[in-house]
Amino acid sequence: MINMDTDILERRIERCCEHMKEANLDVLILTKPSNMFYLCGDGRLCSYAMITNKGQVAIGVPKTDEADVNQLARADVITGFDDEVGMIHSIAHHFKHFGIIKGVLGLEYTWVTKSMLGMLTHPHGKPEKVTVDDCTHVMSELRIVKEPGEIQLLIQAGKVADEGMRAALDAVKEGITESQVAAAAENAMRQAGAEEFWRTYVACGGRTNLAHGIPTNRKIQGGDLVMIDIHPIVDNYSSDTCRMACIGTPTPEQQDAHDLYQKALEAAFEKAKTGVEMSDLEDAMHGMFNDAGHADHIFGPTIHGVGINFEEAPLPSAHASFHGEKPPLPLEANTVIAIGNCGIYTGPWGVRIEDTIVIGDNGPTILTTVPRELRAI
Amino acid sequence: MINMDTDILERRIERCCEHMKEANLDVLILTKPSNMFYLCGDGRLCSYAMITNKGQVAIGVPKTDEADVNQLARADVITGFDDEVGMIHSIAHHFKHFGIIKGVLGLEYTWVTKSMLGMLTHPHGKPEKVTVDDCTHVMSELRIVKEPGEIQLLIQAGKVADEGMRAALDAVKEGITESQVAAAAENAMRQAGAEEFWRTYVACGGRTNLAHGIPTNRKIQGGDLVMIDIHPIVDNYSSDTCRMACIGTPTPEQQDAHDLYQKALEAAFEKAKTGVEMSDLEDAMHGMFNDAGHADHIFGPTIHGVGINFEEAPLPSAHASFHGEKPPLPLEANTVIAIGNCGIYTGPWGVRIEDTIVIGDNGPTILTTVPRELRAI
Repeated sequence: MINMDTDILERRIERCCEHMKEANLDVLILTKPSNMFYLCGDGRLCSYAMITNKGQVAIGVPKTDEADVNQLARADVITGFDDEVGMIHSIAHHFKHFGIIKGVLGLEYTWVTKSMLGMLTHPHGKPEKVTVDDCTHVMSELRIVKEPGEIQLLIQAGKVADEGMRAALDAVKEGITESQVAAAAENAMRQAGAEEFWRTYVACGGRTNLAHGIPTNRKIQGGDLVMIDIHPIVDNYSSDTCRMACIGTPTPEQQDAHDLYQKALEAAFEKAKTGVEMSDLEDAMHGMFNDAGHADHIFGPTIHGVGINFEEAPLPSAHASFHGEKPPLPLEANTVIAIGNCGIYTGPWGVRIEDTIVIGDNGPTILTTVPRELRAI
Repeated sequence: MINMDTDILERRIERCCEHMKEANLDVLILTKPSNMFYLCGDGRLCSYAMITNKGQVAIGVPKTDEADVNQLARADVITGFDDEVGMIHSIAHHFKHFGIIKGVLGLEYTWVTKSMLGMLTHPHGKPEKVTVDDCTHVMSELRIVKEPGEIQLLIQAGKVADEGMRAALDAVKEGITESQVAAAAENAMRQAGAEEFWRTYVACGGRTNLAHGIPTNRKIQGGDLVMIDIHPIVDNYSSDTCRMACIGTPTPEQQDAHDLYQKALEAAFEKAKTGVEMSDLEDAMHGMFNDAGHADHIFGPTIHGVGINFEEAPLPSAHASFHGEKPPLPLEANTVIAIGNCGIYTGPWGVRIEDTIVIGDNGPTILTTVPRELRAI
């Protein structure tokens, strides 16, 4: 947890107001903790931040959290509520306080459930003449290029991810469960300073072919490939890295696929500098997979942004529109992305290697640094 | 992870069809993993299960996961897709396969985001004359009363929660961080058989007053209260328990509030038998808090259901409607709930104790059993 500098938050709110005006939004109600944190210095569940395009900020939180939010957040007004009814009434109060009786309200359509949308636009809260539109892309555009302070936090998160990965790889052995390998990674990340982590994936044997290898009690067996994908949160910023191990000697096909994936990832790094298109990075990897006969084994977006969330904008064009985002622009310096989110999935097994990098004018800074080679156990 | 018995799944689908007909739903598309698992034997992210009120089942999954789902799920047809476009086309295919061109489609409004709702009802997927309604309460009604096999799994999950809580309480000492206490709990739960866990809460000092005490790197100090709230997932079933420790001697006010909370919880247990109203259990606790002058210190629903999710129906009446649920009926035998989800929040500190119990004809079976007393460290 960090106490955000008020000047930084004010500048972000100013930029937000400009983006809101471009998108014809008069006011936002944010409930996604990462967006609330980015603009207000605090984001938490069961809360909201209302932001007008004049830069006024109101926060609503459970009354239990009011004093804590007061210490952490920058806002013109912070209101504690008792329950769902109180939340709706506090929204009405803030609309009135800011004098908003018409206009367009932006909500995070990729975050709010249909049911939550009903609460946030309840007729006892939202004025009748205020209409509603998606603000997902507005918040994404603000957050894609990282400030110097954010880069420092992402460097720190990368180091914690490395600690977690080393501990996980050291823990891998025949007879222990996927869940126990996850325990090693998570424990090491917390000891190294993580306050939380996004879901840990550990998958072995045939389960390496899964898109999301949520750990099970399957015991690691001789000959298994083991895939480890971890995502610490340190001082509100995340990291994302994936590595693989093999119990004993991999088959030639497994070793070849892993070598190919590593080469393709490193080829993408070569191109990862200011001005590159997301599609160029994807094509660099996919081209090598296709040439090696793995065209049918590719699954998932190759790249996603990393910041407060471990998966955020920019997203590749084919996925962006389904997730409320505009098509990605050429990447600017200090955009932070994870490359290697896709995989080669052959059916009986899969391989994937992933790293978090910062786009720079002369190439990337790679934030997750555990050796990429398939670790033989 | 468990391989579900096909007969059990078939009976659940039959019951689901009856509930769908009562709710005037012709077909469901479920994307909440717990609901998918309950009816099909497998639930995972980025997937869906389509269920007709004639008992036909189709599953759509990332193509990487097709073989795995085939092993775990009961369905008439399982389709692998490449991406979001493929998912939408597979939905169209399944509507056509089942001959559905009109009627009402049930979606989980408390789970699907506004954006996901757009994908699931995309005109390239959903037939034009199929309208959409919420199916949250239909799925909840199916799942509230647990089958004997589910009770066994919830007993097992309670034991793992106890292991986690004992490890966390043993780890608490001056100078270590909230996050390190969480690490002890999570590691112990994974070693004891948890495959995953819902978010761990550890909060100390003033942070015990928060509704959701997500761990930070705040170091535990002399005189601190420490609140630990954990939720393992074992073979797909969850548990929920909260205990507290104090570094040194608590103030008389803290000890009194903790003693009061414990007495109130135990008074609610006395009433927790077949036929009890949720409101009777809430009133039992709130009445004692009110009498002791804590009326303004109560926050949050006192009770929620526990099953595949650690928070599920039944919910108290005041919260139910906001979360897509019908008002709760008197509790039937083999309903599993956590009591103690509210707290006494005084401002500078809070107290909370929580246990998962099974409602029985002669009283509850308490599944989480670590001594409830404030642990002095």
